[in-house]
Amino acid sequence: MIKPSPTYHLLIEGDDGRCLACSPEDTILRSLINGGLFVEANCGGRGTCGKCKVQVIAGQVTNKEGLPIKPNQDNTYLACQIYPQSDITIRLKTAEASQKGQALDIVSDGGAPLIKKVVLAPVYPTVDNHYSLQDMIGQALAAPGAVGGGSSSPVLIDDSAMLRRLAAVVETKPELITVTLLDNKAMAIEAHDTSSVLYGVAFDIGTTTVVGMLVDLNVGKVVEVRSRNNPQASLGADVISRIQATHELEGGLERLSQLIRYCLNQIIAELCTAAGIDPNQVYAVTIAGNATMAHLVLEISPSTLVRKPYAALFKYMSPLNPQDIELEINPQGKIMVLPNIASFVGSDTTAAILAVDQDISETPMLMVDLGTNGEMVIGDGNKLYACSTAAGPAFEGAHIRDGMRAADGAIADVVITEQAVLVQTIGSAKPTGICGSGIVKAVAELVKAGILDPSGRFNKSAAAKLPVSLCQRLKNNDGQWEFVLVEGKQTASGTDISITQADVRQIQLVKSSICTGIHFLMEKLPPETVFKVCLAGAFGNYVDIDSALRIGMLPGFKKECVCSVGNAAGTGAVQALLSADKMQRCVTIASKVGYLELAAQPGFQNRFLKNLSFPKA
Amino acid sequence: MIKPSPTYHLLIEGDDGRCLACSPEDTILRSLINGGLFVEANCGGRGTCGKCKVQVIAGQVTNKEGLPIKPNQDNTYLACQIYPQSDITIRLKTAEASQKGQALDIVSDGGAPLIKKVVLAPVYPTVDNHYSLQDMIGQALAAPGAVGGGSSSPVLIDDSAMLRRLAAVVETKPELITVTLLDNKAMAIEAHDTSSVLYGVAFDIGTTTVVGMLVDLNVGKVVEVRSRNNPQASLGADVISRIQATHELEGGLERLSQLIRYCLNQIIAELCTAAGIDPNQVYAVTIAGNATMAHLVLEISPSTLVRKPYAALFKYMSPLNPQDIELEINPQGKIMVLPNIASFVGSDTTAAILAVDQDISETPMLMVDLGTNGEMVIGDGNKLYACSTAAGPAFEGAHIRDGMRAADGAIADVVITEQAVLVQTIGSAKPTGICGSGIVKAVAELVKAGILDPSGRFNKSAAAKLPVSLCQRLKNNDGQWEFVLVEGKQTASGTDISITQADVRQIQLVKSSICTGIHFLMEKLPPETVFKVCLAGAFGNYVDIDSALRIGMLPGFKKECVCSVGNAAGTGAVQALLSADKMQRCVTIASKVGYLELAAQPGFQNRFLKNLSFPKA
Repeated sequence: MIKPSPTYHLLIEGDDGRCLACSPEDTILRSLINGGLFVEANCGGRGTCGKCKVQVIAGQVTNKEGLPIKPNQDNTYLACQIYPQSDITIRLKTAEASQKGQALDIVSDGGAPLIKKVVLAPVYPTVDNHYSLQDMIGQALAAPGAVGGGSSSPVLIDDSAMLRRLAAVVETKPELITVTLLDNKAMAIEAHDTSSVLYGVAFDIGTTTVVGMLVDLNVGKVVEVRSRNNPQASLGADVISRIQATHELEGGLERLSQLIRYCLNQIIAELCTAAGIDPNQVYAVTIAGNATMAHLVLEISPSTLVRKPYAALFKYMSPLNPQDIELEINPQGKIMVLPNIASFVGSDTTAAILAVDQDISETPMLMVDLGTNGEMVIGDGNKLYACSTAAGPAFEGAHIRDGMRAADGAIADVVITEQAVLVQTIGSAKPTGICGSGIVKAVAELVKAGILDPSGRFNKSAAAKLPVSLCQRLKNNDGQWEFVLVEGKQTASGTDISITQADVRQIQLVKSSICTGIHFLMEKLPPETVFKVCLAGAFGNYVDIDSALRIGMLPGFKKECVCSVGNAAGTGAVQALLSADKMQRCVTIASKVGYLELAAQPGFQNRFLKNLSFPKA
Repeated sequence: MIKPSPTYHLLIEGDDGRCLACSPEDTILRSLINGGLFVEANCGGRGTCGKCKVQVIAGQVTNKEGLPIKPNQDNTYLACQIYPQSDITIRLKTAEASQKGQALDIVSDGGAPLIKKVVLAPVYPTVDNHYSLQDMIGQALAAPGAVGGGSSSPVLIDDSAMLRRLAAVVETKPELITVTLLDNKAMAIEAHDTSSVLYGVAFDIGTTTVVGMLVDLNVGKVVEVRSRNNPQASLGADVISRIQATHELEGGLERLSQLIRYCLNQIIAELCTAAGIDPNQVYAVTIAGNATMAHLVLEISPSTLVRKPYAALFKYMSPLNPQDIELEINPQGKIMVLPNIASFVGSDTTAAILAVDQDISETPMLMVDLGTNGEMVIGDGNKLYACSTAAGPAFEGAHIRDGMRAADGAIADVVITEQAVLVQTIGSAKPTGICGSGIVKAVAELVKAGILDPSGRFNKSAAAKLPVSLCQRLKNNDGQWEFVLVEGKQTASGTDISITQADVRQIQLVKSSICTGIHFLMEKLPPETVFKVCLAGAFGNYVDIDSALRIGMLPGFKKECVCSVGNAAGTGAVQALLSADKMQRCVTIASKVGYLELAAQPGFQNRFLKNLSFPKA
């Protein structure tokens, strides 16, 4: 006889004090995820990334075999390694919270809007002038006086959902009826004049961070911005481990899909609350995201992406109903997933190209969009080529021992002087870790100081020649060399914050993939072409250009050619939401950008190995 | 405190011996309907039509007030008038059953099919030749060699449902992939070559009868036909009472919609069983039906149809997914509701016009489609006009005291000789009632014999001059005159089967509405135009043309111009399912047929009153 496992209570201290069910069969991490909580677990619960730390306040936990388990130094446990044996009270180390972003200064270009409302004064049929109510709306829309009138192709309201709405709308015979048009096709119908209210949300779904921008489509302006951690991170930090989770976890695809949809809905709700509007006033959503995210949000298996030849399942997606992906906006609204380019080069790149006008530019450009993945696009209005590389979540703190996101307490800037190491943390808080921009800067400073040699190894003999205040920071910790940025007595956790040899290797891998990608893209264009270089993406936005040049990430470029363009993908998603012409340009971009599969380029391996080195100081 | 009502068991003797729940709060009729059983109740449960008879075998029933209630003469009760006070066992008087129809000899016209399968041998992407799997299918479809190839507008697979299917299909990299095209748009995608299997179902949804025809789309032929009573009849015999039910019954619209969808699914299942195929092999459904039925099956409120100016909500409906109306066919299939013309002139008339080629005819035609409603269409390939009239369910036995459907025991033919009344029943069974063709024939014979005068009154003095064997059949029963067709000793129930004065009035109303409609349509065309007259519809199929002419239903037409064309609506629904051209013609028909609102015609009332009279014998 199978004895059912007991169920315990799992109480979470903190803001919302939720109480979940948990069982000795499941890890605490699994119970937290099942309960819809966001817990960072870059390794997918394998116990290796050390990110899913929880503090156990009360109750008994064991390892899988039911044996006692010791807490870590800081009195925490990895949630993926512990099993409850009683009711448990825990405190999460990372809080689930959204970040308020700055409202972007993106405004409509004044061209034809993608979405507009048309207010009609329909002429109801009479016995003598008889037509269906469907025809009534069609006639009113086609009338030369109507805002959307005089169109050569008549606007038809002929799908069953719209007709059911029409039946409800005409029930009271309102004098005015508002029809919402998407690219001149009717998408929604409402009684009375509702034209004063028309909002949309543009999303940039990143592997690590999801950004939502609320757009007032009448004014043509972003009014609120919110971002959240992508809750899929609890099933893996990078796209590869998430795609694996779709195969390895039971219902993995559905679960990943639900996690991101839940996140989008949370952001929508937050944006609406902040702007004081009802989610029903949101009629349209654009989604830019990397190819894996686009597949997952649609619950379309991304498995072809990880099998040779790494093909995406789709490029183009016709507008969806909110119900299709369970988004809580106006039920008559439409969701537009921007088109993907190829393989891992997704609609975020399409949107970024749009945002920097690379597809219509006369000057050749190189765009490097760095997030958890890196995408690079080269070319101009005539021809564009793109490639993708696993820039990796290193820039976002994963696979870096003391890595963390750009949050309060993260070391974001490092200067190594002749005598000392100066660090700057976000919010000037006590240091808790090091974020992407800090890591690159630290490595660049270590290279500059000669503490790292061009091969990426700590140069012990060079370090020995430095003043003792620096030299003593190079330590051997359990057989691995590391350079201490902040000593334990000054950090929040009481332990050193360092750059380890393994951390340096991670940065070398990322740096080499980016500059190898750039190398092969450059071969597509005539030599000596002058480029403008745009750094885009969350990381691109914060990286110190000098440091990037110092470690050789942008080989052969001069500082004056390089500029940061911020979250270009998000900007593009907003622009496509605002303009029919720009939405159409996205389709053209996706069809005309040539794709380069880096791994298939002759000499790729050699080039990649060569690019691991840092330039000589 | 509200005390919950007790729940009793309601056991139904017979074929399937179902056991339902019932409560003293609800009539037995309501419990039967809630249980999904078909019970005829033309009056919608008002206790007036007398059709919902049940025999109570065991248990106690009362009236609404909980008082004892007497059974009828034949030991039955009206299910709409009795409430259970214990567990109840009943026997239904009418069985729910489908009728097997004759396979129609409709074959494809050999033109471009509406639906076809294309088998592709896709070229999977490689690292060197990289494209999305969506593009792979698009390229294969556009290839000149493909069956559907060389098309100028590329076939796109870009909706989310199709893309999810595509992901499943390419999982195993099959060598062949089958795409089903609807009018050259991709509607379904399957692994391997499935082209040998392609079925569709064409429905004609009548107020009283629903007919389904299974079509082998590869062969272009109807292979099975089944019909069932429309189960909505339990909420009213005619469209007006059903539309009332959508307002008066809680959840009335949903319930009516569910009843007809249930019926369609039953017919689909029966057709598939009979043909030995799986419902998944049915890829497409066409639906012709009167306007009310079209609104109800779509769960679109038909309320505008009963309010001046009696406008239909819609004419055109884009193809639906089976899930939209819960049809159990291949989930990738499509449902096409044929376009309505106007007001009560629905897609059944569109389909009937198509079937008799009236829209392309060079000879002017008058088509009279008689079912529970009557629709009339006049004109030719240049111009067509249509009107609708409540022919009424009288022809199907409702509102006729001894009326019944055309089933075994129904009097279908009546001859009054000089001495006797001869009747012919369906199946030569003992007479149980009289069906539509029998009623018309009986009235025509009574007119011919002078027993009914032109005003429709029983002419007692004329009857008195007839032989006693006839004369004595004219009886005054409780103040109402009736002519006995079959005496009680010869009938199944033991009571007389008669034509009553009220029955004659019903026939006069129907007759007048039809010939008044024809009168106003005729005014649309030049006088002296020579017509071909087509009688269509279930009733049109069986009515005796001589009798119809005798009672003046087809005023001024000669017998040699009149022909019966059977179930033209059903035939048209099959033709539209088979041919892209004919489906397109349906759209043209719906847009070009002029609609005549009879009640708005000047002089309508006078003409209607005048037409109540029968022609002089």
